[in-house]
Amino acid sequence: MNGLRVGIAGSTGAVGIEMLRLLEETAFPVSELSLFASERSTGMTQLYKGRPITIKPLSENSFRGLDLLLNATSAELAEQFLPIAREEGVRVIDNSSAFRMRPEVPLIVPEVNPDRIDSTSRLIANPNCSTIQMCVALAPFDQAFGIRRIIVSTYQAASGAGKEAMEELIGQTKAYANGSPLKAEKFPYPLLFNLIPHIDRFEENGYTREEMKMVNETRKIFEKPEWKISATAVRVPVIRAHSEAITLELEKNYDPNTIITFLGRAPGIVVRDDPEHNGYPMPADVAHRKEVFVGRIRKDLAFDNGVSFWVVADQLLKGAAWNAIQIAQILNERVWGIRA
Amino acid sequence: MNGLRVGIAGSTGAVGIEMLRLLEETAFPVSELSLFASERSTGMTQLYKGRPITIKPLSENSFRGLDLLLNATSAELAEQFLPIAREEGVRVIDNSSAFRMRPEVPLIVPEVNPDRIDSTSRLIANPNCSTIQMCVALAPFDQAFGIRRIIVSTYQAASGAGKEAMEELIGQTKAYANGSPLKAEKFPYPLLFNLIPHIDRFEENGYTREEMKMVNETRKIFEKPEWKISATAVRVPVIRAHSEAITLELEKNYDPNTIITFLGRAPGIVVRDDPEHNGYPMPADVAHRKEVFVGRIRKDLAFDNGVSFWVVADQLLKGAAWNAIQIAQILNERVWGIRA
Repeated sequence: MNGLRVGIAGSTGAVGIEMLRLLEETAFPVSELSLFASERSTGMTQLYKGRPITIKPLSENSFRGLDLLLNATSAELAEQFLPIAREEGVRVIDNSSAFRMRPEVPLIVPEVNPDRIDSTSRLIANPNCSTIQMCVALAPFDQAFGIRRIIVSTYQAASGAGKEAMEELIGQTKAYANGSPLKAEKFPYPLLFNLIPHIDRFEENGYTREEMKMVNETRKIFEKPEWKISATAVRVPVIRAHSEAITLELEKNYDPNTIITFLGRAPGIVVRDDPEHNGYPMPADVAHRKEVFVGRIRKDLAFDNGVSFWVVADQLLKGAAWNAIQIAQILNERVWGIRA
Repeated sequence: MNGLRVGIAGSTGAVGIEMLRLLEETAFPVSELSLFASERSTGMTQLYKGRPITIKPLSENSFRGLDLLLNATSAELAEQFLPIAREEGVRVIDNSSAFRMRPEVPLIVPEVNPDRIDSTSRLIANPNCSTIQMCVALAPFDQAFGIRRIIVSTYQAASGAGKEAMEELIGQTKAYANGSPLKAEKFPYPLLFNLIPHIDRFEENGYTREEMKMVNETRKIFEKPEWKISATAVRVPVIRAHSEAITLELEKNYDPNTIITFLGRAPGIVVRDDPEHNGYPMPADVAHRKEVFVGRIRKDLAFDNGVSFWVVADQLLKGAAWNAIQIAQILNERVWGIRA
């Protein structure tokens, strides 16, 4: 075996495109690549290492002979097709929300709980994008000081709603410049110069599903059902990096003088915290980067043992495709052991 | 006396323009109106009730004969000129930050502490824009349940940095549509499709002055120095309404079933909270409105007695000019008693 037979379902979407690109960029050991998308894209091609690969429609017969499927479809399609892929013996890394909260499904952020992946893992879930970047930033605090309470406000980019949503925001920008009315189809209201405090549908408790994903997935990833978490998720007119203002109440106190060095050593984190020179993470700089950027780190004024900080990450990369590829790398090490 | 001799300093700025318009709209009893701005605008005119009024340069001799000065200059100019206005016996309502924290200066949000205005008030400070809208929303919770802790993340519009900052954002939008580079002068970085977690200068404790204004001014307005408050202030690509995600820990528990009705009765608040029909406050709807809009009201999940909500207000109106005009109306009632 000199490579894996890999499939990407939803390969023409914003996340699928990044998965394809990252397989190339990381020289993932692919012997054969299959691309699946909706009927609309059937027969079209996408380039992989310079060669055109014909896109096939996703169907019940898509999975035979694959070793690994990276799934970037909707949760609805994931529910329909992934059980079939598993029946066929394919290992699946699923970016959708369909199976994340099932007790038997590992929900993985490689910087936090990589050991939950082992050779028996058949289906691994990639967490919600806002959750992933928050968890990377929480991990060092959890390990060193213990976390009691998390309050987070998000500033989420259009990319979280897909490629057409990004195009809608850009289209609104051009319409504004031309004096034309702003059209909204992917979002309930125009996003340009606006904020929409509503991502995914509302639950009975007044929170959105996006907010509850941040609560429930974070608890599952850290195996801390007792954590008190509250989230406000807001869509902002940014193209592809999510930002979060996070306040933690910690179990133990920490030394504010060493916290920046401490965070800088944590896996997957780049600290950008230099107020004197206007240094802090911003979506415009973090787009297209794989790391989670942390800044504005300061002793929180509302808690005795508290810290507040600002976290930015590319939603399509660390929030989706890159986290999935990291999982694929670990899975390869533990299951197939194929070198690139 | 059938009217007041009123001056506006900084009348050509974003806030000054709204002050002028609101004097008209509210039929404030003005017998004579003087407009002051920088040398640049000298000799130009602004319309008041259809009549052009010539703009004069702000100088030490500007104040003689005025009853009331609405100040919309920078803090630096306020420090230079307002003591002279007071010497001349002029009552001053100052929108700048120059005198807000002086113990002898009332810092007023009319929905919260109108009784701090009396006939002896010579200089009254208008609070910081983000602080005002938060305080209007806090007031009913403070009165009914008591507040222990406040955690707030802001989403602040370009208008907070003035008229040229609003124009800069619009200019970037047009440049983007034309494929030209984005210019940034009023903000440290381009704001279009970006977020800048930096408003006003940084303090030694890692917070910005904007964030510390929200802490210190809120405590002063409510006379609650013991309140635990932490803020993260972020500039977002929105033109003129500020938004805030607020989480409160309360002293007493409340009935979540009646909280919407309860908030809807509070002065200055419009509740827009209808998740089923995508009803929540957004900057695009709240711009040019005088009230503070509250939505996404829900039992907070991080505190036993907690509430989270989303607050949007027009930064130039309730966050600045309208709050100042409300103060002027109360001052008129208590000092001069002139009917419109």
